[in-house]
Amino acid sequence: MSRYSPSVAKLISELGKLPGVGPKSAQRLAFHVLSMPQEEVKSLSEALMDARTSTRLCKVCQNFTDQELCSICGDPKRDRSTICVVENPRDVATMERMRDYNGLYHVLHGVYSPLNNVELDSIKIKELIQRLRENPDTKEVIIATNQTAEGEATAMYLGRLIKPSGIKVTRIASGLPMGSDLEYADDVTLSKAMQARHEF
Amino acid sequence: MSRYSPSVAKLISELGKLPGVGPKSAQRLAFHVLSMPQEEVKSLSEALMDARTSTRLCKVCQNFTDQELCSICGDPKRDRSTICVVENPRDVATMERMRDYNGLYHVLHGVYSPLNNVELDSIKIKELIQRLRENPDTKEVIIATNQTAEGEATAMYLGRLIKPSGIKVTRIASGLPMGSDLEYADDVTLSKAMQARHEF
Repeated sequence: MSRYSPSVAKLISELGKLPGVGPKSAQRLAFHVLSMPQEEVKSLSEALMDARTSTRLCKVCQNFTDQELCSICGDPKRDRSTICVVENPRDVATMERMRDYNGLYHVLHGVYSPLNNVELDSIKIKELIQRLRENPDTKEVIIATNQTAEGEATAMYLGRLIKPSGIKVTRIASGLPMGSDLEYADDVTLSKAMQARHEF
Repeated sequence: MSRYSPSVAKLISELGKLPGVGPKSAQRLAFHVLSMPQEEVKSLSEALMDARTSTRLCKVCQNFTDQELCSICGDPKRDRSTICVVENPRDVATMERMRDYNGLYHVLHGVYSPLNNVELDSIKIKELIQRLRENPDTKEVIIATNQTAEGEATAMYLGRLIKPSGIKVTRIASGLPMGSDLEYADDVTLSKAMQARHEF
């Protein structure tokens, strides 16, 4: 038996669908919402819909934007000859935080993951290939998908797909994170770090 | 400089106000919302407002309800002579999970906590006193506020306030949790457990 009124049960169930929100957190969040001033709940509720409805994908890089072109693609100071391919919009924010990269991005919105029913044609690969065809200035495509099985598979697939066009395709390096201890590195990371060793 | 569109920045800020949602989680949740089908966002957005607007406080026990009386206060099978005083509606759900208590509740919606600007008159103490006055059948008030400094202070205050009326006032026991190791108990808990020792 549920001790909650239908509207509260529904709220708990909706909140529980969010990533990282388990049944217990969903209940805690719902009770918090019930004790919030109604104005604040309205503000949160509207922010959700406003953000979702005003956001679309940049027609060039597929990142989230509220314009036709995102602020990076529309920035004349960015280097148009390099495209960094990432899995999702969060990764663009992460890369930008580094302040080291001045090229453009391409957001795949996922990685090839047949086990999770993500096929190659459901991520933005077609859009990348067409973009490369339409922009002959592109000199390098840096593939920065995650260092996971799916990220690696997608990177390898993209590498093979783009290479014949003559554009340089690179993969961000895998190795020991800065500040980390050799002792705690896993075998795969260590082996990758050894393979990618360089001379002083 | 913010890299987010105004509506996304607003959503991140609104989500960040929820308890246990830091800036990083707020960003992760916001990006998740942006990639959700619009119908699902609408459903979440509406669930928030629906739950908040249809929820009010039970006129007897002050718990959340969508009726005038909550399902516990309105249940003729509950023992009307006992009132268990708790800090918030979540605590009612926790007590009910135990299935051991068949009396009524009173929800304070907070505890006396001058450091957090919660004064005695901003929690539902007036309502409790009036309820006791109007219901001469009440035989026992069990104070089940948390075992924190604020919960203890509130319990002591309530005890002193109610005792002169002749109603029995009790406090739930503090001691070692079941299944716990003496070795890992903190000093205050251990001392309370010693004081509350009972004969076999």
